[in-house]
Amino acid sequence: MIEKVNCAKKAIELVEDGMIIGLGSGTTVRVFVEMLAERVREGMDVAVVPSSIDSHMLAVEHGIRVVSLLEHPEPDVCVDGADQVDRDFNLIKGGGGALTREKIVASASKKFYVIVDESKMVDRLSMPVPVEVLEFAYGFVRKRLADLGYVLKLREGKGKLRPVISDNGNLIADVDAGVIESPEEVEGALRIPGIVENGIFLAEMVDGVVVGRKDGAEVLRR
Amino acid sequence: MIEKVNCAKKAIELVEDGMIIGLGSGTTVRVFVEMLAERVREGMDVAVVPSSIDSHMLAVEHGIRVVSLLEHPEPDVCVDGADQVDRDFNLIKGGGGALTREKIVASASKKFYVIVDESKMVDRLSMPVPVEVLEFAYGFVRKRLADLGYVLKLREGKGKLRPVISDNGNLIADVDAGVIESPEEVEGALRIPGIVENGIFLAEMVDGVVVGRKDGAEVLRR
Repeated sequence: MIEKVNCAKKAIELVEDGMIIGLGSGTTVRVFVEMLAERVREGMDVAVVPSSIDSHMLAVEHGIRVVSLLEHPEPDVCVDGADQVDRDFNLIKGGGGALTREKIVASASKKFYVIVDESKMVDRLSMPVPVEVLEFAYGFVRKRLADLGYVLKLREGKGKLRPVISDNGNLIADVDAGVIESPEEVEGALRIPGIVENGIFLAEMVDGVVVGRKDGAEVLRR
Repeated sequence: MIEKVNCAKKAIELVEDGMIIGLGSGTTVRVFVEMLAERVREGMDVAVVPSSIDSHMLAVEHGIRVVSLLEHPEPDVCVDGADQVDRDFNLIKGGGGALTREKIVASASKKFYVIVDESKMVDRLSMPVPVEVLEFAYGFVRKRLADLGYVLKLREGKGKLRPVISDNGNLIADVDAGVIESPEEVEGALRIPGIVENGIFLAEMVDGVVVGRKDGAEVLRR
């Protein structure tokens, strides 16, 4: 936990008065929001574009002003977590299922900073890649990916309502592509009609990675 | 209308007993469905994967068996209309708003035949390109396209409920890209997070175009 606190502390330094902030999701973002709320109480004037229903609620609970991409199509900075970050700063995101809105907000923002504890830093991406799939297309997408040698598995939720549904109302599934040698190639292969978005965020999107460690945090830039 | 009838008559020759048929939408498809229903009544055993709620209902009304991509991820043939077909067989589709499911079914099928009357044949694509956009992303997508020099306009429905909503629950809008010199380039530019799908179907997807004229119909192949 101290890694996440150190990370969030460092990330909050990126925020300036008057900024519109793209707000991601996840546990480190949660700590970041608490610190941001403190700044707002101290008089800082910021607003956030949340990239999930969860983070929207979180911002509201903490008294942080929420706006949308309609008023602010280009937030100043986006701060979001990641499930894995490789040595080149390619990411896998979407363990929480919010990948589509997260990619939209990250793409929209002038700067995109990833905030992670050091456990997320890996040599090569290797976890299954989350995808958001239209229910209508599921059978086709599964077959097309199988033809490419990838196994698609429906995300299983807790309780009786089994499939995990995204904030946009679509299925969340995971594509096992093994250890990913070329994120560009896999990301391209996942651009299939019916896949609304995939959880590979290529390094070209990323302006910096804020890595939290036990003894502090640092901002790595490309 | 005689052009559409001639076209559908020619297209029905592509259908064989036992086939799974991807079924598009539009006025020519409507005529095709009537002829297909006649074949079914005569004993032909086929089933359709409809690419819109409209064509699903149409098939049911005509007593044609409906299946989904879950049971049949790879239909034998897809038969669908188009709004424009250029000299190289690139298409613009989605005037009816069903572009995403249409692209899914066309991509899934072993063969994809476009059925149009000759008024749809053009030298170069020139109508605004329909896109399906997540409401969440609309402000960003509009700005990003404006930066590229394209004007995005929300599709206006009839009556009081103004925005046109797709079968998947997202916004339908149109991108004015002028006369399209390179469909590949524009299609690529429209691959932006938040655009679920765009209405440019590149020629590589198309196996043939069935063109209906006053005096008959012909199948053009690449």
